[in-house]
Amino acid sequence: MAKDFYGELQLGILGGGQLGRMLIQEAINYNVNVHVLDPDKNAPCRKLCNRFETGSLSDFETVYNFGKDLDMITIEIEKVNVDALEKLEEEGVMVYPQSRVIRLIQDKGLQKQFFKQNGIPTAAFQLISNKENLHDTHISLPYIQKLRKDGYDGKGVRKINDVAAIATAFEEPSLVEELVDFEKEIAVIVARNDKGQVSTFPLVEMEFNPEANLVEFLISPSTLSFEIQTQAEEIAKKIADDLQIVGLLAVEMFLTKDGQILVNELAPRPHNSGHQTIEGNITSQFAQHLRAIFNLPLGSTAVRTNAVMINLLGEPNYEGMAKYDGVEEALGIEGVFVHLYGKKYTKPFRKMGHVCIVNDDRDEAIKNARFIQEILKVKA
Amino acid sequence: MAKDFYGELQLGILGGGQLGRMLIQEAINYNVNVHVLDPDKNAPCRKLCNRFETGSLSDFETVYNFGKDLDMITIEIEKVNVDALEKLEEEGVMVYPQSRVIRLIQDKGLQKQFFKQNGIPTAAFQLISNKENLHDTHISLPYIQKLRKDGYDGKGVRKINDVAAIATAFEEPSLVEELVDFEKEIAVIVARNDKGQVSTFPLVEMEFNPEANLVEFLISPSTLSFEIQTQAEEIAKKIADDLQIVGLLAVEMFLTKDGQILVNELAPRPHNSGHQTIEGNITSQFAQHLRAIFNLPLGSTAVRTNAVMINLLGEPNYEGMAKYDGVEEALGIEGVFVHLYGKKYTKPFRKMGHVCIVNDDRDEAIKNARFIQEILKVKA
Repeated sequence: MAKDFYGELQLGILGGGQLGRMLIQEAINYNVNVHVLDPDKNAPCRKLCNRFETGSLSDFETVYNFGKDLDMITIEIEKVNVDALEKLEEEGVMVYPQSRVIRLIQDKGLQKQFFKQNGIPTAAFQLISNKENLHDTHISLPYIQKLRKDGYDGKGVRKINDVAAIATAFEEPSLVEELVDFEKEIAVIVARNDKGQVSTFPLVEMEFNPEANLVEFLISPSTLSFEIQTQAEEIAKKIADDLQIVGLLAVEMFLTKDGQILVNELAPRPHNSGHQTIEGNITSQFAQHLRAIFNLPLGSTAVRTNAVMINLLGEPNYEGMAKYDGVEEALGIEGVFVHLYGKKYTKPFRKMGHVCIVNDDRDEAIKNARFIQEILKVKA
Repeated sequence: MAKDFYGELQLGILGGGQLGRMLIQEAINYNVNVHVLDPDKNAPCRKLCNRFETGSLSDFETVYNFGKDLDMITIEIEKVNVDALEKLEEEGVMVYPQSRVIRLIQDKGLQKQFFKQNGIPTAAFQLISNKENLHDTHISLPYIQKLRKDGYDGKGVRKINDVAAIATAFEEPSLVEELVDFEKEIAVIVARNDKGQVSTFPLVEMEFNPEANLVEFLISPSTLSFEIQTQAEEIAKKIADDLQIVGLLAVEMFLTKDGQILVNELAPRPHNSGHQTIEGNITSQFAQHLRAIFNLPLGSTAVRTNAVMINLLGEPNYEGMAKYDGVEEALGIEGVFVHLYGKKYTKPFRKMGHVCIVNDDRDEAIKNARFIQEILKVKA
């Protein structure tokens, strides 16, 4: 990097939520000047950066004007105006991950085609232009229908059980996917810098909240076999190489009951499945993302100890000014790290924070995490 | 604490330097609203808080007005207007550490008298009103003369070798202290919350830069005997209890060549001798300070791995806009954490950042730290 960036670099982050917030906590160590754009004037990053701008991430002019005087732009959410990023790239602003990578990942149809073209294992699928097409798909019922664009955290995903259910299916461009009979949801976060150095974090296993379809519980390191872990990491590395991405890439996968790994989807940024790296690994995912986009040597991803991550989701039936029950009791347990996201208002299943529980004894870490899940509640 | 403070508490920090900066990095996890007062408009905290105010820390009106609408005030430097803090305390603002503790520690004479009154081992001393008194002191030459107020980082300390040197001694109120023939400088950081819970971090050994009299190199954990470590920790706990301090207290001590521990001086705040706790211990000193002032259970101070801390001091002979040489090479070594302090200008021996090097092999950690000391330079 030509510019001496420790203190001079102007870094823009599209999105000012918790991922941006934790990225800033780390960016402080590098003297980076951080600029944030977010539509919400109360976004978690609002008071932690050199400049906070309120505006739409989908609007061409807003994103272009936000970025045109910056040196580098990164994202904490992939639903952003890619045309603006492409123009900024042409004008010399460094955009990591690159606009073409964001464009591809924004569209779950393009993602699936990319997997197919590059021989990356994934569930059988078919692209669908409109609801009527569903009657002709070769994917057999029941199947999953996913909107090609704008789905996140389980939104934009529907299970179609039978022909009658097609009436309630999404109208917009979508894809249908074979139902995967999976044993576990697993994830590997991989980083790649512009020199082409690629490094994966060890595989993690996730448990989802069935009601909200959000990661609720995550254990690192995994106890899956060495073969499975290696295979998942190799897949993640291959995707990073095939994409030639610069930055972090979260690769969410299914481990099927017959031991197959199928890639589910990608996120080109820090990810909920990597929060435990802050305390559990030598390098955190946020530090690694910065190393990758700054073209620095990638850090060691080695596990330091057992870490369990639980999301603090807004309790069902509570909406309003957030109150946190049980923080004091949770902090009385050894190895407990509470991360609150600075969100003033809670609503059911809103991600309000997370807790990382570390322990040299894995069972103890899990036991403590289960206990904290019971006592720590976000209410209003 | 009556107030539900996650998101509502308005916390003021007197001082906006690197200690405040690292405290903010941690306070983000608790949704605290941070207000900072510092005389330097370019202070390291300026862009990381809800409100940054430029003003004198020694001025009554400035400190009082800064604090009067806040819920709680803490400090990152002890040279502040204590009368203003006392008035704020009377008006119901929580001030941690308490104004009376800051008042005592601001004056090295009062500190020494406190040690004597409470049976805390310290070098023999005598209070001195003016230079003339030096001719009558019962402390034998050569001795150390220290200004009672406003000394820091080796400033305000002078060695008086012989009677002739008295001519060049400090004029202001001071103390003279027996010269200690020490083997090592050691430190214990202790925390105490308002419930009276007290917890020490394991002892650390420091090496000082002889030219600048600043901590340059620190190794955790110590390899000193269990007896010495326990004794030092007990002394630190006793001081915290005797002072009834709320917050963090750094206790700097000498280990003499004949194995005695003598307390040198106190700092009622996060301290340079605790930076390695960020990566090296379960709870960092910054997290512990917040737990203490928020009256939360104190965190485990257990060592996670060997950690060496080196200060990044401005190179001699360079003054101006800071440039950092060797960061990329340093980050290529496993277990290296660089913390830059966001200071635009460097000057000889200015604290510009620090690096923490962790490794499960102690010798390897030391070797890597020595290497980084050679390659990582702050120039202009």
